[in-house]
Amino acid sequence: MNEFDIIKIFFAPLAHHPGALNLKDDAAIFTIPAGNELVVTKDAMVSGVHFIGNESPESIARKLLRVNLSDLAAMGATPCYYFLALMLPATTPEHWIRSFASGLAADQKEYGITLMGGDTTHTTTGALALSLTAFGLVPEGQSLKRSGAKAGDAVYVSGTIGDAALGLQVAGGKLQVKGSGTLLQRYQLPQPRIALGQKLRGIANACMDISDGLMQDMEHIATSSGVGATLHQALIPLSMAARYAMETIENPWQTIVAGGDDYELLFTVPLHHISRLESITDVTVTRIGTMTEGKTIQLLDKHGEEMILARKGYRHF
Amino acid sequence: MNEFDIIKIFFAPLAHHPGALNLKDDAAIFTIPAGNELVVTKDAMVSGVHFIGNESPESIARKLLRVNLSDLAAMGATPCYYFLALMLPATTPEHWIRSFASGLAADQKEYGITLMGGDTTHTTTGALALSLTAFGLVPEGQSLKRSGAKAGDAVYVSGTIGDAALGLQVAGGKLQVKGSGTLLQRYQLPQPRIALGQKLRGIANACMDISDGLMQDMEHIATSSGVGATLHQALIPLSMAARYAMETIENPWQTIVAGGDDYELLFTVPLHHISRLESITDVTVTRIGTMTEGKTIQLLDKHGEEMILARKGYRHF
Repeated sequence: MNEFDIIKIFFAPLAHHPGALNLKDDAAIFTIPAGNELVVTKDAMVSGVHFIGNESPESIARKLLRVNLSDLAAMGATPCYYFLALMLPATTPEHWIRSFASGLAADQKEYGITLMGGDTTHTTTGALALSLTAFGLVPEGQSLKRSGAKAGDAVYVSGTIGDAALGLQVAGGKLQVKGSGTLLQRYQLPQPRIALGQKLRGIANACMDISDGLMQDMEHIATSSGVGATLHQALIPLSMAARYAMETIENPWQTIVAGGDDYELLFTVPLHHISRLESITDVTVTRIGTMTEGKTIQLLDKHGEEMILARKGYRHF
Repeated sequence: MNEFDIIKIFFAPLAHHPGALNLKDDAAIFTIPAGNELVVTKDAMVSGVHFIGNESPESIARKLLRVNLSDLAAMGATPCYYFLALMLPATTPEHWIRSFASGLAADQKEYGITLMGGDTTHTTTGALALSLTAFGLVPEGQSLKRSGAKAGDAVYVSGTIGDAALGLQVAGGKLQVKGSGTLLQRYQLPQPRIALGQKLRGIANACMDISDGLMQDMEHIATSSGVGATLHQALIPLSMAARYAMETIENPWQTIVAGGDDYELLFTVPLHHISRLESITDVTVTRIGTMTEGKTIQLLDKHGEEMILARKGYRHF
């Protein structure tokens, strides 16, 4: 199969919008509904960096989509379209591509999105490289940003923190505990908090998704907003599986608060809006701290002592 | 430098639109002017496949941008924004990234576009992988497509054909003739035909850019439109350098009509619009054939005999 057959057989059936022109043209064409802004994100994933490489093609496809959808969720947007660049080792078997496309199809259905275009090319190296550009809509002026946090805001996270970073250790054979399967699942298949992001419009002052690690991402919000933050270790929500894992690994908090890949929302809420939070959430949200004057970002242990981390999150290079 | 420093120092200065949020957020936000459609394309480039790898970083950056802008040109769109995913070998030196960004800056100025977002990650292999998503605008309903060609339309190309494919041979040390530098330049730095694409709105029935090879791309237009095409070798416009090269290489027409990387426009014009062509073009356009009834796509030599090609264009896999 050459790339035209691959596109025709596996990807054209995913392109439901007439503006995708059946993936036969040089570009896609579309308009956006009046009163909306377009929200666009582009994330790349490389084998051996963002995933191990032995995952199922479905799971790689869905993770690629979901890390991008999580960015849209963080802005309060409703996902609609995506573009995909596939850079495949020349030896990639046809069934791999078929499975990859079936993963996309499953998540298109789950999230109500459609493929609009992209590029399929080969690489001369063994490493699969992927890039996805995701589009969402948000009513004009209502998008959430990182820069709006104010001193005094309560800091919240959705779901539980650290599961995916522990799941990476499970995937690498370094961790085996009760609930390992759940941790692995959290690493392989993030749950973008799209409904929550949309509901936080008009409630949260700042929002982002946790991809690189809670503490590093907290620093992003604080720095963008020109304020500080104090978080409390004892308040950070953990899954049962994470609690089991903590008993078996060294320095578990380092992994939990700096490991990343959570794809939960981290957001700040002015105190007078906290009561509105309860009525909107279909996912558990937990207050973990407070935004502060100044520029210090600290994590306090249960004795109120600052915890020192070797690093605050994942960094390329 | 970690990726946050790279983004802040080299890429944030390229993000002039307020909706890019200084490249600090999860996504970019923007609207499009009323009466316009958005035209979006996404092309990937991989070292060792789309470029040799020893090119200057500026030239790699500009080629990446321009192959995408050429797609927008083919739709008759006016480029405005782009998103970039950089997947860099972990050993990439800082000065390489600086030069890459300066190539982007030069072309942003030349084409009036601005960076809106993207992703910077490392790869574990030695191969640089790049993906770019380019955005353009076109007045509603006026975009050019591949599918509109009709039997009887005249077939045109812009510029000269085959230079870039010959330039690849120059780059690989396989060809050295008078004008080699020009051929190499055509390979390394395409000239997207943006002004021409815009002017062809309302004149051309079908349009695309030649990236994979003239004959293969002619087939794309013909197949999308449900018609055939007859092209004449003797009419295909050649540069002086290509004429010199033809005397020294084997089977030069194979390279010229199937080598690709031309980034010229290939378009079809109904006969009653041909007279309008002359007044609009700032670049030479040349009639090379006619669209026909049926499904045959043929290239005739000067004796009217069909030329048989080993392959019609570049194919991945």
